[in-house]
Amino acid sequence: MFDNFRRQAVRIDVPRLRPRRAPNALPKVNLAELTPEVLPYLGQAAYIQLAIFESIARAVMLSPTVRAKEALAPAAGVALDKHVKLVAELRRRDDDPAAVMAVFAPAIDRYQAVVRGSDWFESLASIYLTAGILDDFFVLLATGLEGEIGPRASQIVDAASHRDAIVVLLNDAIGSDASLGSRLALWGRRLVGDTLLVARSAIHHTDNARTDEERIEPVFTELIAKHSRRMDGLGLTA
Amino acid sequence: MFDNFRRQAVRIDVPRLRPRRAPNALPKVNLAELTPEVLPYLGQAAYIQLAIFESIARAVMLSPTVRAKEALAPAAGVALDKHVKLVAELRRRDDDPAAVMAVFAPAIDRYQAVVRGSDWFESLASIYLTAGILDDFFVLLATGLEGEIGPRASQIVDAASHRDAIVVLLNDAIGSDASLGSRLALWGRRLVGDTLLVARSAIHHTDNARTDEERIEPVFTELIAKHSRRMDGLGLTA
Repeated sequence: MFDNFRRQAVRIDVPRLRPRRAPNALPKVNLAELTPEVLPYLGQAAYIQLAIFESIARAVMLSPTVRAKEALAPAAGVALDKHVKLVAELRRRDDDPAAVMAVFAPAIDRYQAVVRGSDWFESLASIYLTAGILDDFFVLLATGLEGEIGPRASQIVDAASHRDAIVVLLNDAIGSDASLGSRLALWGRRLVGDTLLVARSAIHHTDNARTDEERIEPVFTELIAKHSRRMDGLGLTA
Repeated sequence: MFDNFRRQAVRIDVPRLRPRRAPNALPKVNLAELTPEVLPYLGQAAYIQLAIFESIARAVMLSPTVRAKEALAPAAGVALDKHVKLVAELRRRDDDPAAVMAVFAPAIDRYQAVVRGSDWFESLASIYLTAGILDDFFVLLATGLEGEIGPRASQIVDAASHRDAIVVLLNDAIGSDASLGSRLALWGRRLVGDTLLVARSAIHHTDNARTDEERIEPVFTELIAKHSRRMDGLGLTA
């Protein structure tokens, strides 16, 4: 699904050098060489925010109480807002944002079906954990974008997620049902692999797979460290 | 379900007189005598906007194309925004907005299940037509609220709905499938009865059922006239 955008990069035989950023703008890992072109970045980031919106909206619908609906709804609004802002950036650069996003839709739809979970609690854990990883990843990736879109995309994706309500709902539920805790701990660990595959697919691949892997590794290490802190916050063993 | 709020009004034996508004603030029908107290008004209006949000979000999820998702998503955002603003008004008056809304949830959830439709097109028609009637109704009803909350609630509910995208999607689909048009015309007519029942349940009932009916009738006539114009816009015979 991602070959449309990848092919373009792979065809270039000359070594690619991207301008390095000032040291204070550098993230812990330098993603400049991994970041895709701006259109595929925005298309994939925008569609992922739409998918996050849909999964939160679904959790709102499936909420057993009005109080839970009420607690979750703002997070759906934030994801939708991020989506709309990323689409606006797309539209400035391409007159058909839906076509840019559509390239990424099948893979992300499949991914969403896999991480949906078998009940409301698994869905909540999945939203909190996978959207956490994906937001972190696209914020990191944005630092590698050339021009003013880098900081702007980073700011859009990094906006307060309002997903803390999920932590409260899950802590309450786990507190009164220990077996739910062990089930969600397993589930939380399972989600990482599929989510990192989505991240991997978004990365600009060169024709040197080994160098790519060496560059990707520290990024994934950082994403997993942050994931583990979110698991801790849920009282789950990562 | 609505007895909690109704009972309070029914118990009052003295005739109730509400201040009349300045002539230029009057809607075509005077709803002052029909408007419930501010808390049940806000609770029901807020929960209905949440239900509209959920049904649009569901239509986004079920969209066959990214383009359709993209077209529908802003309408979900508007309904959520109306919900959040109405809840903010509730919170100023009551420290437990979810409890105020919860009274109305079972009836509205049942209603939403009935008007959901059996496929994506019926869902779209239902959103456009039922949310249209309900928005119109709660805007009308707001004119009867005492104090500054009347105009404010009216303004919140009356905000641009961004549901025009639905008209475009349905016109396209009906244009290429005449049988869909006749099916949706039937469906659109069926929706009115259930939706007016929701409106009826939101009205302040006195102990004079006949007077209530006489007051309600012109309101429903106006709602149905606007509904017929929306049916026309979809190319459907009301």
